[in-house]
Amino acid sequence: MRVDLNADAGESFGAWALGDDAALLESVTSVNVACGFHAGDPSIIRRTIRLAARAGVRVGAHPGYPDLQGFGRRTMALGPGEVEDIVLYQVSAVLGMARAEGVRLAHVKPHGALYNQAARDPALAAAVARAVVSLESGLMLVALAGSALLQAGVDAGLPVAAEAFADRAYLANGTLAPRHLGGAVIRDADVVAARALTIVREGRVRTLEGADVSVRADTLCIHGDTPGAATLARVIRTALEAAGVLVSAPA
Amino acid sequence: MRVDLNADAGESFGAWALGDDAALLESVTSVNVACGFHAGDPSIIRRTIRLAARAGVRVGAHPGYPDLQGFGRRTMALGPGEVEDIVLYQVSAVLGMARAEGVRLAHVKPHGALYNQAARDPALAAAVARAVVSLESGLMLVALAGSALLQAGVDAGLPVAAEAFADRAYLANGTLAPRHLGGAVIRDADVVAARALTIVREGRVRTLEGADVSVRADTLCIHGDTPGAATLARVIRTALEAAGVLVSAPA
Amino acid sequence: MRVDLNADAGESFGAWALGDDAALLESVTSVNVACGFHAGDPSIIRRTIRLAARAGVRVGAHPGYPDLQGFGRRTMALGPGEVEDIVLYQVSAVLGMARAEGVRLAHVKPHGALYNQAARDPALAAAVARAVVSLESGLMLVALAGSALLQAGVDAGLPVAAEAFADRAYLANGTLAPRHLGGAVIRDADVVAARALTIVREGRVRTLEGADVSVRADTLCIHGDTPGAATLARVIRTALEAAGVLVSAPA
Amino acid sequence: MRVDLNADAGESFGAWALGDDAALLESVTSVNVACGFHAGDPSIIRRTIRLAARAGVRVGAHPGYPDLQGFGRRTMALGPGEVEDIVLYQVSAVLGMARAEGVRLAHVKPHGALYNQAARDPALAAAVARAVVSLESGLMLVALAGSALLQAGVDAGLPVAAEAFADRAYLANGTLAPRHLGGAVIRDADVVAARALTIVREGRVRTLEGADVSVRADTLCIHGDTPGAATLARVIRTALEAAGVLVSAPA
Repeated sequence: MRVDLNADAGESFGAWALGDDAALLESVTSVNVACGFHAGDPSIIRRTIRLAARAGVRVGAHPGYPDLQGFGRRTMALGPGEVEDIVLYQVSAVLGMARAEGVRLAHVKPHGALYNQAARDPALAAAVARAVVSLESGLMLVALAGSALLQAGVDAGLPVAAEAFADRAYLANGTLAPRHLGGAVIRDADVVAARALTIVREGRVRTLEGADVSVRADTLCIHGDTPGAATLARVIRTALEAAGVLVSAPA
Repeated sequence: MRVDLNADAGESFGAWALGDDAALLESVTSVNVACGFHAGDPSIIRRTIRLAARAGVRVGAHPGYPDLQGFGRRTMALGPGEVEDIVLYQVSAVLGMARAEGVRLAHVKPHGALYNQAARDPALAAAVARAVVSLESGLMLVALAGSALLQAGVDAGLPVAAEAFADRAYLANGTLAPRHLGGAVIRDADVVAARALTIVREGRVRTLEGADVSVRADTLCIHGDTPGAATLARVIRTALEAAGVLVSAPA
Repeated sequence: MRVDLNADAGESFGAWALGDDAALLESVTSVNVACGFHAGDPSIIRRTIRLAARAGVRVGAHPGYPDLQGFGRRTMALGPGEVEDIVLYQVSAVLGMARAEGVRLAHVKPHGALYNQAARDPALAAAVARAVVSLESGLMLVALAGSALLQAGVDAGLPVAAEAFADRAYLANGTLAPRHLGGAVIRDADVVAARALTIVREGRVRTLEGADVSVRADTLCIHGDTPGAATLARVIRTALEAAGVLVSAPA
Repeated sequence: MRVDLNADAGESFGAWALGDDAALLESVTSVNVACGFHAGDPSIIRRTIRLAARAGVRVGAHPGYPDLQGFGRRTMALGPGEVEDIVLYQVSAVLGMARAEGVRLAHVKPHGALYNQAARDPALAAAVARAVVSLESGLMLVALAGSALLQAGVDAGLPVAAEAFADRAYLANGTLAPRHLGGAVIRDADVVAARALTIVREGRVRTLEGADVSVRADTLCIHGDTPGAATLARVIRTALEAAGVLVSAPA
């Protein structure tokens, strides 16, 4: 039994700090580094890569929409060509900065609205996968379990990691319950840890409707902007390891 | 006798077109591709790289200040660390996009105010050189002949190309005459072509004061935003080749 | 019989020029000035206001989404509160600049994706109307004839102008045919002029399906980024005036 | 004896929070609201105006350079015309938003590098003053005591407020000691409060060299981004009021 714990990092920008990367890095095994379009700037990207490398945490790129004010969370209608190009640009920038730091960039996980739209839209999903393939760097694509994006990665011959969310309720069709629904976001650390265990060991997760649905989880997402994220990460990791699960980044 | 002719390219942005890259590419041997901070966007960068590769023209990156409205031409006070990081980010982005297109990125030439400030300020010059060195990609640094930036490239062990300007008057100290001085910008194509020949064959250029000053020119700059830039490039190239000068990119 | 001819203006940005405002201003009676979010910058806004005032053309504000690269044409999911605030900010900026030039700002017309989304979505439409109402400046709201945005203006007690498009085909339900459909955009100046006449004099327009649908037109839109826009504007104006239609801005 | 206490506010941006405006508003009598170029966005501007109005604190505009990443603190070489236009644009935007909230905008204080450059450069200072004058709104210009900017305001016929800094050491020539010099920034709240009293009651301030220099202070600046800024503001206000100084915004 093995699972990766991932969190977003490097989400500060200029004078503005966001998240507690140093604390999160003590518990997660992968980080997704914001690439400068929805968050992050060149100096913050570099510092985050250094920090992650020093903590022995796997580094990935976290490209998003060019929407700084909206933090990349607002749905935008970019065409597949535009999406391919912005992903290629952002991942290339972080890949080069990682190389300059002697760090291997290991994966790509789209951010926010891009992640959600590519999970549902096969054309956008294929565009993201094409961008990653064109870098020819052995990069792994991280995508929502069961999504069009995960499938696009497989179709493109990329190594992929299916992502699940222990702190989010699911719907019967295996997608995430929208945040505005009551019970969609689970905040109790012990409940989240218990769900994480069920996901990893039994491959299933409780839906909002009360039944279980199966889910594959190569990696579990820790939301770094949740208050108490670092504590939550530690609780989940401790629970997983106590149950004999190996918490580590994919090879 | 051999010289490179370089021009900036990919300076459009979103809906806004600038310059006539296709026409310029018929005469120049190197282009400097804007990297998205002062001009260019991911889709334009990619298209420009493709266009240059198809024309057999050498592709370089042209990083600038994060000042889209000012086109990177306004002096800005970034510290050396910030400069190193923005150059590394931008060159990495274009390097990755070039690789995705099967194109080798060959050189880096800073743009506008960054070029001018790094020409004079050894700390900024060293920061630019460090960024290029850290990419470990055999990239050549293009810098004003006789400048602090050229020296920083040499000191860092980088291959360098000294740049001269056939359409700009020089001062007695070997620097460019500021644009606002009368006679600082030369527009007559035949005069510019004659100056190009003198620079390349005799290693000297006429100053605003009327004397000659020596100048090294591995590459001559064609300003793509000058009206008639493509014609000017053709006139210069024709004049150089008629005089037996080999016009080609450095190996 | 009276109609206004409006065109977008001030769509340049920094070093990038777009459109031929000076030529368009000879034929149109209103301009919509880009406010800096999707196009325009403070210096261009001011210059455009001056140019319009000198030409005796009515000046309005043309707020758009914060998407410079996409020219405000990409659908974005902003909430009603965000939309109200970005409209209020942008119109206030242009209103103040117009006052500084001794020019009365007369109307507000949302741009691109914001115009289209507010035409269909009553919540966004109401948000735009609230922003205009809160300025208490007698500003007129310009919106697609028959749209939710026009209705929101009426509901808010604003003076409104219904806009029609002589160079676009309509659908049977009175909305514009999407641009990607064959025949959706009409480029022949004489055909466009004839359609303009039918719209103004008979209150109807031919649909893509071949039947007519009724349309109210207080103002006709001239797309300034169409090649030959200034010529098209002149042809339409000449045809309207030859038919006895008064071409002038609303009082 | 009377003095105003001012602080910057509304310096958050999108998802990023900065400063504790609510706490500061309990002690200061004026706030300078960031206008969206170096910090702030339309929704944050509006919220800040509301918060200040509810607290009975005078609202001003705080325009800065278009440099979000550098927080408007990096020197930039904009020409006087560009400066006039960006100030006019930003102040107009905040003025309109304040009117929409039923709040009178009372003053303009340039931010960061713009404040510092306009303090020294008469051409930039005149440009800022022209922008404020052109709004014809009775706006007061807040500028460093003894600066070119304060003089430009007087020359333009504007009401002005001279600003002094109780937490910064001065040089013998009456300017602020640069932040990188030892002792340039004073952090002990009691020392700062004592300096504030000396400035207000005796019109003089201790220099880094150890002598006193005279300073006029209609308003004292509280740096909101100093850790403990709200506490510092309260200590200063309490000390001033205990000494019989009326702490209030100018009429």
